[in-house]
Amino acid sequence: MRKNEVQQNHTGSGHGIIKVIGLGPGSFEDMTERAAEAIRESEVIVGYNTYISLIRPMIENKKIIGNDMREEVERCRLAIEEAVLGKKVGVVCSGDAGVYGMAGLILELVLKRPQEERPRVEIIAGVTSANACAAVLGAPLMNDFAVISLSDYLTPWELIEKRVRLAAEGDFVMVLYNPKSRKRADYLERVKNMVMKVRSPGTPVGFVRKAGRAGESVEISTLENMDKVQADMQTTVIIGNSRSFAKDGWMVTPRGYHI
Amino acid sequence: MRKNEVQQNHTGSGHGIIKVIGLGPGSFEDMTERAAEAIRESEVIVGYNTYISLIRPMIENKKIIGNDMREEVERCRLAIEEAVLGKKVGVVCSGDAGVYGMAGLILELVLKRPQEERPRVEIIAGVTSANACAAVLGAPLMNDFAVISLSDYLTPWELIEKRVRLAAEGDFVMVLYNPKSRKRADYLERVKNMVMKVRSPGTPVGFVRKAGRAGESVEISTLENMDKVQADMQTTVIIGNSRSFAKDGWMVTPRGYHI
Repeated sequence: MRKNEVQQNHTGSGHGIIKVIGLGPGSFEDMTERAAEAIRESEVIVGYNTYISLIRPMIENKKIIGNDMREEVERCRLAIEEAVLGKKVGVVCSGDAGVYGMAGLILELVLKRPQEERPRVEIIAGVTSANACAAVLGAPLMNDFAVISLSDYLTPWELIEKRVRLAAEGDFVMVLYNPKSRKRADYLERVKNMVMKVRSPGTPVGFVRKAGRAGESVEISTLENMDKVQADMQTTVIIGNSRSFAKDGWMVTPRGYHI
Repeated sequence: MRKNEVQQNHTGSGHGIIKVIGLGPGSFEDMTERAAEAIRESEVIVGYNTYISLIRPMIENKKIIGNDMREEVERCRLAIEEAVLGKKVGVVCSGDAGVYGMAGLILELVLKRPQEERPRVEIIAGVTSANACAAVLGAPLMNDFAVISLSDYLTPWELIEKRVRLAAEGDFVMVLYNPKSRKRADYLERVKNMVMKVRSPGTPVGFVRKAGRAGESVEISTLENMDKVQADMQTTVIIGNSRSFAKDGWMVTPRGYHI
């Protein structure tokens, strides 16, 4: 019902359809029914191999286009080609399809085509890592927050740095995606040094790795020690605001109720 | 598996359990299986009446504590009392339980109790309004974004204003929750005036009301006209960054891929 309304406003018909599907953190239980149904309906599944493997039991007998075959842009082009041929295509992303996922790239590529050559597109939201990790930590996102990716692959480091500095100044809770890679070994230390200028060294900082997947790990540290915690591209980091606290294994940012 | 690990790290046992459940935008299809299962398992359901009504068919024969009975803090206290008596309690919130929801208040209240008098707590993430509305609009959250509530009930307006100004300066996409109420009729105009100082008047601004529920409406406007669009407490507003664009009914923020 809802999506039909939207589709009527949008272009493309007569061709197939691309659904860009947010899988949530990883387990079947954390997927929405809309996402599961979209996967079941798809004839072709496109995605990064890690995500493909999360849903393997659901996609037997479907055509699969993974990253052993092509790069991101190329994979999205292949997805669109399949849809233009009339196929039902599911492009899968972990978390939410619209947060550092494939929703944007698919729409950019589709909207470059002449209207009559566009497949229909539907974006299916999922539980993004910020929310999945917050739930594991407790309730760190109860007040205003900023989501920042520390990957400088597509965004210059100067802009990332500026955003971290401004978010710290605004006392935003900060959610850091892609906090660390081999090439960017000191980025968390750089973030710490910037945030330490305005926030207390004891501010809680939560680390969640592989939320909702086998091997999940959780650690609550402090701002002054955050650069000593192990982190990688599968870790999400949440830095509390000036009122956040950690207690008995939980991290909480008060909403402001008088209790 | 995942949640057991967490529970073992956290306090409370022997009593009942409180699950703080994010329902997602509203329809059953957009709920995770973990949330649905938690609702089915609960003996007592606590929540704002609007959310209770969304899941009415799932909760027949359960004890229901809605807001016709008590205020938020009082409702959470009642939920904790029921759990301490050994009941399985589900506290339901729309969207994600941890984003302006009840997860924080429940944890704050539980952690004030002596360890031996605490029920177990589990937070179940849901698709928050930022992501649900983004999916309806297209892909506006493909780059760093800030989530800000314009409600000054629990946060002073001066701080909200400061956050909007800093988020604008950092070229964050901005997601505004609770954008307007009768008492705060001009807040969107104030936001517009602040953002106009640094962002182009043609910047796309998306409005989604009742995402995923009966009566959903979507509108893509521009920064200079955003104060003229109808909005209320059930609307979420997304202001694009300097690279966001609107085309043929979709709103997209490029991630930065060269295509």
